[in-house]
Amino acid sequence: MSQDHADLDARMAFLIEADRLKSVIRATRNADGARHENTAEHSWHLTLFALTLAPHASEGVQIDRVIRMLILHDLVEIDAGDTPIFGETQGQAADEAVAADRIFGLLPADQAAEFRALWDEFEAAETPDAIFAKSLDRFQPPNLNLSNGGGSWTDYNVTEETVRIRVGTQIARGAPALWDWLSPRIAAFFAR
Amino acid sequence: MSQDHADLDARMAFLIEADRLKSVIRATRNADGARHENTAEHSWHLTLFALTLAPHASEGVQIDRVIRMLILHDLVEIDAGDTPIFGETQGQAADEAVAADRIFGLLPADQAAEFRALWDEFEAAETPDAIFAKSLDRFQPPNLNLSNGGGSWTDYNVTEETVRIRVGTQIARGAPALWDWLSPRIAAFFAR
Repeated sequence: MSQDHADLDARMAFLIEADRLKSVIRATRNADGARHENTAEHSWHLTLFALTLAPHASEGVQIDRVIRMLILHDLVEIDAGDTPIFGETQGQAADEAVAADRIFGLLPADQAAEFRALWDEFEAAETPDAIFAKSLDRFQPPNLNLSNGGGSWTDYNVTEETVRIRVGTQIARGAPALWDWLSPRIAAFFAR
Repeated sequence: MSQDHADLDARMAFLIEADRLKSVIRATRNADGARHENTAEHSWHLTLFALTLAPHASEGVQIDRVIRMLILHDLVEIDAGDTPIFGETQGQAADEAVAADRIFGLLPADQAAEFRALWDEFEAAETPDAIFAKSLDRFQPPNLNLSNGGGSWTDYNVTEETVRIRVGTQIARGAPALWDWLSPRIAAFFAR
C-alpha cells in the first residue's frame, strides 16, 4: 500500500503540475473570437480533431497513438511558453527539451520514459503517427481563424504566401485531403 | 473529391461547433484557484488522468477507449450546460440526450453512431471502461479543490459526508486505489 501511495504521489504531482497548461495562452483565438485559446483546451480540441478526422488519415496511422501524442504534445509549454507559428522561435527547441526533462521527470521512471518517447516522436515528425499529429496541430488554427474573421493572421499581419509556406506545407505532408479542403478557403479569405 | 469535401464539410462543422465547449464554465476552479475551469480544458485534463493513472485501472480496462470516451463525454454541455455535482440536476438527463442528438447529428451517419455509442456507454457506466472513465471524472475535481484550498466544496458549503457519498462512492467503485489515496486527504481537509 505505501508503495502504491508513493507511486500515486508522483503521478498526482505530475497531474496537478499539468493543470498549469490551462494558463498558457496561445496566439490563436477561439472560433467565436471572444478570447485567445489556452493550450489545455487546444490540446483537447486536437484530440477531437484526431478522432473525428481519423478516416482521412493515411493508411497505417494508429489514431489512438496520435491521440496520446496530442494529449502530451504541448506540456512543455508550461515552462517554455507557446511559440506562435508566425513569431520568433530562437532557442525554443532547447528550452522545450529542458522543460520535458523537468515535467516528465515528475513521473515514475517507466512512465516518464514512455511519455518522453511519445513527445520525442511527435517532435521528430518522422513516423506516420507523428506526421499526422503534426498536420492536425497545423490544421486546427487556420480553421479557428476562418471562423473568427482572421484571428492570428490579422494580428501578425500575415500574407497568404506565409500561411501556405508555414502551415500549408505541413498539413499537406500528413493530411493531403485536409489541405485540399482548406486551401481554397484560405484563398477566399485572403481575396476578400 | 466532391464526396470527400461533403464529408469534410460535416466533420468540420462538428469540430467548430465543438469549440463552444471552451466557453462552458464548471463549478470547479483550476489548481491555482485563479478562475473556474472550462469543460474543454477539463476534458483534456481527464484524458491525461487516464493516460497517467492507467496502471491503477482494473484488469481489462482499455485505456484508449477510456480516453475516447473522455474526449467526448461532456460535448452535450454545449447545449445542456454543466451540472455541478453539488447542485440541482432536474431534467438534465433528458436535456443531454437532446443535445447528443443535435451535436453528434452534425457528423456523417456512421461516425455519429460511433460517437453516440461511446457517449451512451459512458453515461450508462456499466462496462469496465465506462466505470473507470466515470471514476476519473469524479476523481479530478476533489484534487483541484485540495490544491486551491477548497474550491467548489467551499462555494457550495459541502460537508465531508456529502463528498464521500456523491464523489467517493463512484471513485471507489471504478478506481479503489485512487480512492484509498484520496480519502485521507479529504479527511485532513475537512478536519482543518
